[in-house]
Parts: sequence; C-alpha cells; structure tokens
Amino acid sequence: MHKVIFDTDPGVDDAMALLFLHRHPEVDLLGVTTVFGNVAVDLTTRNAQFLHREWKIPAPIAKGAGETIDPSRRDDRAASVVHGADGLGNIGVPEAIDWPLDPRPAHEFIIDTVRAHPGEVTLVAVGRMTNLALAVKADPELAGLVKDVIVMGGAFDVNGNVTPAAEANIHGDPEAADLVFITPWKVTIVGLDVTMKTIMSADYLAEMVEAGDQPVKLLSDLSQYYIDFYRSRVGIAGMAVHDSTACVYLVRPDLFTVRSGPVRVVCGGLADGGTIQAPDRGRRFVGTPWDGQPSQWACTGVEAERVLEVIRAAIVESQAIPA
Amino acid sequence: MHKVIFDTDPGVDDAMALLFLHRHPEVDLLGVTTVFGNVAVDLTTRNAQFLHREWKIPAPIAKGAGETIDPSRRDDRAASVVHGADGLGNIGVPEAIDWPLDPRPAHEFIIDTVRAHPGEVTLVAVGRMTNLALAVKADPELAGLVKDVIVMGGAFDVNGNVTPAAEANIHGDPEAADLVFITPWKVTIVGLDVTMKTIMSADYLAEMVEAGDQPVKLLSDLSQYYIDFYRSRVGIAGMAVHDSTACVYLVRPDLFTVRSGPVRVVCGGLADGGTIQAPDRGRRFVGTPWDGQPSQWACTGVEAERVLEVIRAAIVESQAIPA
Repeated sequence: MHKVIFDTDPGVDDAMALLFLHRHPEVDLLGVTTVFGNVAVDLTTRNAQFLHREWKIPAPIAKGAGETIDPSRRDDRAASVVHGADGLGNIGVPEAIDWPLDPRPAHEFIIDTVRAHPGEVTLVAVGRMTNLALAVKADPELAGLVKDVIVMGGAFDVNGNVTPAAEANIHGDPEAADLVFITPWKVTIVGLDVTMKTIMSADYLAEMVEAGDQPVKLLSDLSQYYIDFYRSRVGIAGMAVHDSTACVYLVRPDLFTVRSGPVRVVCGGLADGGTIQAPDRGRRFVGTPWDGQPSQWACTGVEAERVLEVIRAAIVESQAIPA
Repeated sequence: MHKVIFDTDPGVDDAMALLFLHRHPEVDLLGVTTVFGNVAVDLTTRNAQFLHREWKIPAPIAKGAGETIDPSRRDDRAASVVHGADGLGNIGVPEAIDWPLDPRPAHEFIIDTVRAHPGEVTLVAVGRMTNLALAVKADPELAGLVKDVIVMGGAFDVNGNVTPAAEANIHGDPEAADLVFITPWKVTIVGLDVTMKTIMSADYLAEMVEAGDQPVKLLSDLSQYYIDFYRSRVGIAGMAVHDSTACVYLVRPDLFTVRSGPVRVVCGGLADGGTIQAPDRGRRFVGTPWDGQPSQWACTGVEAERVLEVIRAAIVESQAIPA
C-alpha cells in the first residue's frame, strides 16, 4: 500500500486524480491538502470538500497556501478558461459545502502526517509547489522522512503551457518549485513531456461512464468544459489527464521513462517558471547553479495507452492493473 | 550559386566550415567577417588570415566585434579548452600573418556587400551574433535586403553546452542573438539539436586526409586538439562539426527537419542565453514576449550521415552532392 498525501488545486484533472487515488486498491490516502492555482484557494478547498462529500472520501482535507512563497511575486494568470470559473467546469458547485476541514494549515498537516509515518509517505503534488516548500522551510528534516515526492509540473524537452517556456504549476510559484527540486529528497517530475501525450478522448470517458457508477458520471460532467477547452484552444480531441498521469506514476512507474539529474527553475525574466535539468549522463557543466544539487527524476517518455487503462481500471472497477 | 558572407570565430570547426564554403562549387564566398568567441577577436582574425593564406582563399576578411553588444555584460568563458589557446588546436599559428584585411569593420562590410547584391546574399553566422546585430542596428533596412540568414547556435529541445540551458554562440552575446531572431528576415537556426548528432569520427577525417590534398591535412592537424576535447570531456568518439553543419544547410536544406515559430533569447538569470521557440503549430500563447515576433526556423532533425558526405565531397573533391 502506498501511503499518500495528495496536494491539489481542484481543478478538473485534479478531480479525476482524486477519484483515482480514492479508488485504487493499493493507495492509502492519508490526506488531501489544497493550494491555490487553477482557481483561488478558497475555491480549490471548497471543491475538495464538494468532491469528498459527493464521493464519500474519508481522508481529511487541510487548506493550504493562497499565494506564492515570495509575496513580492504577483499572480495574474487565472486558469478559469481551462477549468471554469468555479474550477470544476462550471457545473454549479454550491458556494459552501458542509464538510469538515482539518484545523491545521496544509504544510503543518504534511509535517505531522509524515512524522507519524516516517519513511512511508509519498507526497503527490499536482498544483503549485507552495505547500511543499512551506513544509520544507518549516521542518528541514522532513526531506529525510518522506518516502517519495511525485510532482505534476514542468516541461523539459517540450514547450510549456502558460508561456513557451513554462508549465502552469511551476510558473505559478517558481521559487517554491525551485526549493522543492533542490531539497535532498527524491522527486519525480511528471511534466508536459509525458502528460501532453496522455490524452483521454471524450469517447473514452463516455465509455467509462457507461461502465461506471454515479461518481464517474459526476467526473464526466465536470470534465466537459475542460474537454471543450482542449478542443477549441489546444486543438486536441480529448483532454490531457495531467494529474492522473502523475498518480499513475505512483503505482506503475514502469510505464514511464525517466532521466536523472539536478533540476532548477528559472525565476524571473523571459523563461520565468521554466524547468531545466542538467542530466547526470552526458556533458558536464562547471560553475553553474546546478552544481552540487541533488539529482531528481524527470519523466521523458510514457506508455500513454496503458496509463489510460490504469486510470480506467481504478476509477471504474476499483482495480489495479499489475505490472 | 549561393552568394555568402561567412561570419566566424575560427575556431576549429569554423576552419572546416571555411574550407567547405571555399571549395563547394555552388558557393560564391563574398567575404569573411570575424568576431570574438572561441578566442578573442584579434586571434580569430589572425586565424582567418592564416587559413586564407594557407588555403589561398581570395575572399576579403573584415574584422568584427570584440565584445558583446551590451557593454555591461562581462564575458568570462574562454573556449580555449575546446579550441586551444590559439583557437586552432595549438598547432603553432604564427603571431602575425601578412595577409590583407578589409579596412571596414565587419558590420559595415556586411551592409555594403548586401547592398551591392540586394536580395542575393545569405549570411552564414557561426560565432556570436554581435556583427549581425550591429549591422541591423546601423541599417534597419538590411533585413529586407538579405536573402537568408543561417545561424549556428542555440539549443531548443536539448541541453546547451555552456550551461544546461545555453549554447556557446548564444550564451556569448544573448542580447545580440535576440535582436537577430526578432529581426524580420528569415533566420534558420542550426543548433545543438542537430549539430550534436552530426559527429565526424577521427577515422572519417583520417580517410578524408588520405584522399585529399595539403589543405585537408592542415584541417586534420588543427582538429586533433578538438577531437581530444570531445573524447575526454564530452565522451564522444569524434567531433561535432557544428559550423560545417550550418553550411550544409545552405546547400542541402532537404537534409534537415525544421520547425517554424518566433524565437526569443533569455537574457540574464539561470537560463541566460537559452533559446526558446513558440512554435507556430500547436498551443497558442497570449501576452508573452513572443507575441507579434516574426517566425524563424529551428532545425530539429538531421540526416547526419548524409551531411558528413556532403562535407567530405566538398572538402576532398570540391564537389556538390545534388539533392
């Protein structure tokens, strides 16, 4: 069983990932922490409450950061064009949801939970890296106590999606992401290099609804706005299931190709939020900001069709597909 | 016939490219302009004089820029580890060469020569972009009078060679390169994406010497230091023929895959000198520094073995291989 804290900004593809983690038989979801990103943190938290209520997810929810770790940075790129003004495809989520919140801020919840299960917890972070960065700053020993970190974010050998250089989760808080990547824990970065290859068609989702129960129907309903975005603005017949792809890495890392090497994040300027890896293999560089930083793992390849099957099996049948 | 001005910082792979242009039957080499880079401009100019004398190249030489276009930028990365302290593999080039120099600075030579052959001249620039940037600044109409610009430089979907983000020619004068790329002329960028795939082995070069004349022997002699660098520092059994690859694009563009879209250069920070293209196809970005800039052409693929054949045929046999 994988003990997981899911750090998320629901968000349409976050919702699918949440249902995946909830239903996958090899995942023990210890908690959900929210962060700003796809919409403001009040909304992402409300959306987490809504999804927990609708899907009867028992894991506690802790509300997290609502702004970048560097307060001088202004965030002005709402993703409502992608996820809807409410963050869940404008399906009409009630303004307030009667569902409990953990009293601690997300980063404290992360610290306490990791310390309660030393060496056992994987952090799966699919929004901005702010909560993880705050946790590491508040408790530097945390790096040695976490089992693994899996991040959805970044773009290495491909373009970004906010600018040609930067992916949204990293672009939304570059300083936080840089701190997460240079922290000496094992981070696997599931970025656009693989998530933009992992496209679920509208038909595929419709077949999941046909075979599934009411929660799958809700998932499909809230995904339609997002699918429309991909059709009209990206020119893709289907949706990139970014966050679920990161969750599949947790249970089926064999479906991915990874490349090791230190990763730094560009902070400021034209390439603000860009992720750049200095691979361990190949040319050596001297006197650069990558020197002496820990190697992390960037995904460069994916067996996309099989990732979709793993998602479908967990969400529709609550089943794992073994390697 | 391709009328060419060759902007260069010899440099070992520059020397091969110069011999290629001199001997290729479809190239009319109108002039050679020098720039700092692989070594200081006094040395690259002296090396151009040396190679012209040894190889009896009649094209005039005009000395160019010795520092970055932004004087506040300090250049502190000598490439002598790659090209030797003298820039030509430490073969013992005499300190001064009795060979004429054009009285004009390089950028004036470029302007005058292009204006003398409007619409006919291709600029092939394989060093820092400083001379081209100075020419465009001094004569903004130049963009409409040049036929084509071919640049060796940059790294798009691969790492750089000075830092993980940046290739040497661009890193050496990012502001100049950015100006060249946003100028409304057609620029094709032959970067590390293709030149690091175009590796000439020591054996291949030795066979060229066997079949060739004295100039080929000199080329081989001055290349040995560079080959040693690639073996010991890059771990490659042979040398990347960066600059010759750009020259092959001039005569055989069919051997390359290109991608169109505006290109900007990162100036400052972690990714200083990085080249980022916003491809014309695929996702559209709004409100970024790529908006409204002209599309340029980045090489993303190459038929490397055939590029080497084109180089060999021109240098050894003064022959073109037709498409």
